[in-house]
Amino acid sequence: MVSIAIMGHGVVGSGVAEILLTHKQKLFARLGEEIYIKKVLDLREFPDSPIADRFTKDFEEIINDLEIRVVVEVMGGLHPSYEFVSRCIKAGKSVVTSNKELVAAYGAELLALAKENNVNFLFEASVGGGIPIIRPMNQCLVANIVDEIAGILNGTTNFILTKMIEDGMQFADALKLAQELGFAEKDPTADIEGHDACRKICILASLAFGKHVYPDSVHTEGITKITLEDVKYAEKFGCVIKLIGRVKKLNNNKIDIITAPMLVPLKSQLANIDNEFNGIMVRGDCTGDVVFYGKGAGKLPTASAVVADIVDCCQHLKKRRFLFWTDGDGSNIINVSESVFAMYVRVKGRDAVVKAEGIFGSIQSLSTHGGDRAAFTTKAMTYSEFTEKINKLASDGVEILSTIRIGDL
Amino acid sequence: MVSIAIMGHGVVGSGVAEILLTHKQKLFARLGEEIYIKKVLDLREFPDSPIADRFTKDFEEIINDLEIRVVVEVMGGLHPSYEFVSRCIKAGKSVVTSNKELVAAYGAELLALAKENNVNFLFEASVGGGIPIIRPMNQCLVANIVDEIAGILNGTTNFILTKMIEDGMQFADALKLAQELGFAEKDPTADIEGHDACRKICILASLAFGKHVYPDSVHTEGITKITLEDVKYAEKFGCVIKLIGRVKKLNNNKIDIITAPMLVPLKSQLANIDNEFNGIMVRGDCTGDVVFYGKGAGKLPTASAVVADIVDCCQHLKKRRFLFWTDGDGSNIINVSESVFAMYVRVKGRDAVVKAEGIFGSIQSLSTHGGDRAAFTTKAMTYSEFTEKINKLASDGVEILSTIRIGDL
Repeated sequence: MVSIAIMGHGVVGSGVAEILLTHKQKLFARLGEEIYIKKVLDLREFPDSPIADRFTKDFEEIINDLEIRVVVEVMGGLHPSYEFVSRCIKAGKSVVTSNKELVAAYGAELLALAKENNVNFLFEASVGGGIPIIRPMNQCLVANIVDEIAGILNGTTNFILTKMIEDGMQFADALKLAQELGFAEKDPTADIEGHDACRKICILASLAFGKHVYPDSVHTEGITKITLEDVKYAEKFGCVIKLIGRVKKLNNNKIDIITAPMLVPLKSQLANIDNEFNGIMVRGDCTGDVVFYGKGAGKLPTASAVVADIVDCCQHLKKRRFLFWTDGDGSNIINVSESVFAMYVRVKGRDAVVKAEGIFGSIQSLSTHGGDRAAFTTKAMTYSEFTEKINKLASDGVEILSTIRIGDL
Repeated sequence: MVSIAIMGHGVVGSGVAEILLTHKQKLFARLGEEIYIKKVLDLREFPDSPIADRFTKDFEEIINDLEIRVVVEVMGGLHPSYEFVSRCIKAGKSVVTSNKELVAAYGAELLALAKENNVNFLFEASVGGGIPIIRPMNQCLVANIVDEIAGILNGTTNFILTKMIEDGMQFADALKLAQELGFAEKDPTADIEGHDACRKICILASLAFGKHVYPDSVHTEGITKITLEDVKYAEKFGCVIKLIGRVKKLNNNKIDIITAPMLVPLKSQLANIDNEFNGIMVRGDCTGDVVFYGKGAGKLPTASAVVADIVDCCQHLKKRRFLFWTDGDGSNIINVSESVFAMYVRVKGRDAVVKAEGIFGSIQSLSTHGGDRAAFTTKAMTYSEFTEKINKLASDGVEILSTIRIGDL
């Protein structure tokens, strides 16, 4: 019997307890011993839970219990998650978490701490919910050099964009619908401003390239400025608009990492990932493109990834899994101004297209609407070059309504 | 240093050697020790190979070398692969293979032998080439009951069907092109008759449901009878035709397993998997649908999956990985006559549609062509019920040009 504790009994935490109870037999068959939930930490009361007698409001009961070998952190947020997880690891307990905010902010530190204390720190559920991605990527990495990772990493924004694309809904209406259906939180900032997707691409980049990438070193744009007009022009250019987290290995051992809405060509495997689903493309030098697709969030999908990690920890109580990266100072990340993309531009103004052609040399695709409205795409250039040209266009009297990167995915 | 041997220096085998040599540093960093190719078994000569001095034509040199702890079987075919692999396992060596024919025919026996001898028998590369699928599925299985697996498991046939769908090529021309491009072998029987896809769905079904499924207990149809007419009618019905390997868990603890071309609705994630790519959907009770996509064959993709298994073996020389199923007698597999599908039917004859409506009660979709040609789809029914009705239709003077299952994917 392996005793574990679960910190947090919210959506994911209650899902973890549910799977451990309902899949008990299956888990026993795999592990050869029982996984026993000895304590559940939550400040609320759950008198109707089948394990109501094991709830505690006191973290000290967990940290001081020598029988508890694995602790599951599913509270979310940074504090006190960080303090609790650190203390558990220092006390010789392996930790499993679904908390992407925690891993993105303290991953390198906690991995080093786990190494020092010869325990495991696993977080499969922190990216892609129920989609196996951390472990397969770690496996891919053995025999591959990863050249690029790009993904639709946030289900809320993908649901909103899908409603805009397929049903012609305005952003605000689609957001409201997402909230009504439980796909978006009351305060949707972390999702719609791209912070959640950014944390996830940071975790994948850290894993792939071996150095911690902190979210505040990544240029991040959300989807709040995307309009129905952009969606329709994108369609004319054979693209859909998706919020993409992307990291690319450059020749100089640096990486180009960004979270931003992008025009994705319809032929891309990421173009067809709709609604609340997530999809992650990993481009390896040997495998080529491999794409993982599924529900990126939700109670049972996420909880099942947590449970797989719990089993892995229980199977390796005295052996460390290879999952590691060192701290990073951001010196391997290029500035967004050096980042190269073809761009989509929507403009308004007399002779806007002629002026744009003058400034950009040639434009790639063009769609006009009425006498003074148009959208066009440029060839690939650095963001600083693009900004310079677009400022010139604006000073020529053309109103710049929107600019969006074009994903070469 | 861990010494290994590679049996076979064909496409995959030479790829394995190449990755082990070119990714040496990366592998050393992960494993903490060197993987040393001590012997390569091949009857041919490779004087230009950087490891030309380590080639042997004599299997006994490998089996008798106590330093060799891991043997890679990439010869293909059943014999002498089976005999060599059995002897290696009995001699206490772990075995890694990419040979789906071997795993589909002898998987249960070789897994039992590996268990008995406390070594590992791994075969990630046998399904999906470079797509991680065996390991992620095994991980998914920990906290999920798998309800269904469906996949495009053969790149050759998917390439041929894509050319028929996208470029309007006839089957024979598409096959010729596939052969010219190296996607199809000179003798393409195993691919186009569905045997290769069948072996792969057998391996996945064995893993998911714990009992070996032998290919000869699975109803298997290839794509040789698919015509351009079928492809065009399918398009009218909002579908594409794909060769699908599918296994479904039924309520009575039995499974329904089949390999056959199917009409796949365009909204399915499998509909967009084109050309030589593979895609596998795993439906779990907790995760929902998870799809894995990538190159299902090819030298380096397949070799990189083999190398990941080699590393896993090297990391667990004295510990067994959990990957196991018992032998099966086919008693858990329902007969194809009981299998339930909606069907697509293409017919020719005077009043064919009126007659079909009389016999099938109602028909779901209908597309007519000229005065006496039509295609329609039926509601879901057992294959025996369908056969009875279609025989009646034929005896009513209607020519049955083709019948294809409709995949509910």
